[in-house]
Amino acid sequence: MTEYKETFIEGGTVTSPRGFKAGAVTAGIKKNRTKPDLGILCSEKPCTAAGMFTTSKIRAAAVIVSEENLKEGRASVIVVNSGCANAYNGEKGIIDAKEMISLAAAHTGVPVSDVLVASTGVTGQLLPMDRIREGIKKIPLSADGGHDLARAIMTTDTVQKEAAVTGRNGTAAYTIGGIAKGSGMIHPNMATMFCFLTTDAPVETGFLKAALKKAVDMSFNMISVDGDMSPSDTVVIMANGAAGGETIQAGSRAAREFRRKLNAVCIRLAAALARDGEGATKLIISNVTGARNLKEARKVARAVVMSSLIKTAVHGGDPNWGRIVAAVAQSGIDVGLSDIDMAIGTVAVLKAGRPLPFDEKDVIGVLRQADVPVSIHLNMGNGSATAWGCDMSEEYVGINSEYMT
Amino acid sequence: MTEYKETFIEGGTVTSPRGFKAGAVTAGIKKNRTKPDLGILCSEKPCTAAGMFTTSKIRAAAVIVSEENLKEGRASVIVVNSGCANAYNGEKGIIDAKEMISLAAAHTGVPVSDVLVASTGVTGQLLPMDRIREGIKKIPLSADGGHDLARAIMTTDTVQKEAAVTGRNGTAAYTIGGIAKGSGMIHPNMATMFCFLTTDAPVETGFLKAALKKAVDMSFNMISVDGDMSPSDTVVIMANGAAGGETIQAGSRAAREFRRKLNAVCIRLAAALARDGEGATKLIISNVTGARNLKEARKVARAVVMSSLIKTAVHGGDPNWGRIVAAVAQSGIDVGLSDIDMAIGTVAVLKAGRPLPFDEKDVIGVLRQADVPVSIHLNMGNGSATAWGCDMSEEYVGINSEYMT
Repeated sequence: MTEYKETFIEGGTVTSPRGFKAGAVTAGIKKNRTKPDLGILCSEKPCTAAGMFTTSKIRAAAVIVSEENLKEGRASVIVVNSGCANAYNGEKGIIDAKEMISLAAAHTGVPVSDVLVASTGVTGQLLPMDRIREGIKKIPLSADGGHDLARAIMTTDTVQKEAAVTGRNGTAAYTIGGIAKGSGMIHPNMATMFCFLTTDAPVETGFLKAALKKAVDMSFNMISVDGDMSPSDTVVIMANGAAGGETIQAGSRAAREFRRKLNAVCIRLAAALARDGEGATKLIISNVTGARNLKEARKVARAVVMSSLIKTAVHGGDPNWGRIVAAVAQSGIDVGLSDIDMAIGTVAVLKAGRPLPFDEKDVIGVLRQADVPVSIHLNMGNGSATAWGCDMSEEYVGINSEYMT
Repeated sequence: MTEYKETFIEGGTVTSPRGFKAGAVTAGIKKNRTKPDLGILCSEKPCTAAGMFTTSKIRAAAVIVSEENLKEGRASVIVVNSGCANAYNGEKGIIDAKEMISLAAAHTGVPVSDVLVASTGVTGQLLPMDRIREGIKKIPLSADGGHDLARAIMTTDTVQKEAAVTGRNGTAAYTIGGIAKGSGMIHPNMATMFCFLTTDAPVETGFLKAALKKAVDMSFNMISVDGDMSPSDTVVIMANGAAGGETIQAGSRAAREFRRKLNAVCIRLAAALARDGEGATKLIISNVTGARNLKEARKVARAVVMSSLIKTAVHGGDPNWGRIVAAVAQSGIDVGLSDIDMAIGTVAVLKAGRPLPFDEKDVIGVLRQADVPVSIHLNMGNGSATAWGCDMSEEYVGINSEYMT
């Protein structure tokens, strides 16, 4: 995918675009009281903004409150905590989420209507508001604070996920930056993941919203760790215009470039989430071509990364291509065995449904790589899509057996 | 569920009904050449018969051939092997499946049109036909052979699954017996599982087919081990009439009793499959009541047993009811938190979406039981359903990482 071949800024993060600051503290919300768990991202200037949230029918308080606050297409501050999702807490949850917004507004000097909130962690427990009140006051905000915020939003993540690229809008150069978290409960349609994106380009709200939706559809909605969905998933982008230049509108050349750059950042962060899936040791990249259309290509690509049997086979280095055929066959599209060409890495294993002679050692070699590409060509049309997933290890079970207790 | 409270025959199996014989041999199809892997089930008299097969778009040769042979609603012999699924083998697979039928027909003296075939095991490899030709000739058939056949169809199963009940048809007493296999790739809509059912009651074909479908919908289609579907799933019932009495037709009192008994056998075998899921240590029983209708109740019940996060939490004894709420919320029905009452075992944890005070130790105690019942009442209507699943352990990953290699 060309988007994935963008040049990323070395060490780039969500505060790489001009006029954004961030910071975090250790407030004691997480059980492990040595890890940062509360932070703020803010813009010096008002922003146009757009967001996408969990499609789960029962949503956490922060999602309900933030979606409401985003209705006008403006937001310039996000306050976020890890360690407690503030989900399934009824009216008290809403009250606490709104108080977090008020506290962050006071700390940054921005109206409450421009502040969003996000919470991740254990569900069904109330936020420790005393610690949050103390903590928010102490959050330091700096132009280099994106890294600290990236760390503070981690739960079972083992590495920070950050990315930034530059683009051009006429004569003005701008940057798009982002951070993300989430390594369990990750599934197409954005389950328990956060992604906060910023840009100093001036972007019209309606276009920003449409561009975000397309980028999320081809990135975060194409990854799967475990098939579970969370009540808290949140992707937000804020554009403060600090880079100058004309406001980017739909249909322009600058809009096309902005889209390409935004897609690149989202795909980079989405693949990083899949690679860091709970207990994961490998990234599975499922490339589907020749499908009837985009929708069917996405169905098949996702079916491959969602199969527990493929995930465990990749983990064990088992060259079991039959499991990939089974995933294609149950993906929900109309397909026959003779429609399928398949390669694992660069090793072709099936042509029109017939097994090709190949050396098992070559496939085992691919399965031992950190990136395992599976290519499926369906000989039906021009639809293509990529999905990202991870292998399933004994450690996934260990992590999730003992998350709360 | 009342069906589950039937009295089962001690040591009952697929040859408990009169006039059925079975047997098995070790033909050397499995890698482990000390385990039985080839067997036959047959009736002394012609049978009415019905079957249900995988809904996967790409089906194994045995499924294609057997479904064709069942079109007339008659079958009296099933030949079955484990160790090789004969799937994804194109025309050669069909030829081999048909030869298995011919060999079994010769061995039992039944016309080929009355013989079905079933194969389970690794996909994408050809059957070792030389060993199968030698093996089928040697299969001993006896009225007590159901146990041997139950063993021969096992792959990663750790225990045999057998059941039988008796019923009355006017003055005639009859028996329904069955065996099943499958412990991985198990999922609603019957993935990699076999169930072979027999009865000595005389049953009209159309009614037999309808009764089988209903029984499968409430049993095998309500279990999940790992969300994957196989190309080989097969459920078949054969009725030979050896018990005498009037032919059971739809709408009669005898039909209602037959249905109840058939449901009981299928539910018993389905729960046994879930309990023996790969790496499983516990049975999760998800009871949903108060749904708008049966369809929604089934969606919610299945969502609970399909969630990797619930499966791992049950494994680890983690009283994380938020994960159950998340599963309900993503099940695809329209639901709010305040609609939900929930109990884990007999411990009520939620009422109208509000957490109830409970002792965590009580819930942990339930999670340590061999059977873990989760009850969800939705306060919406009269729809109810039960689904069965298992916990997910580190061993599930171990088994599936090394299945083929």
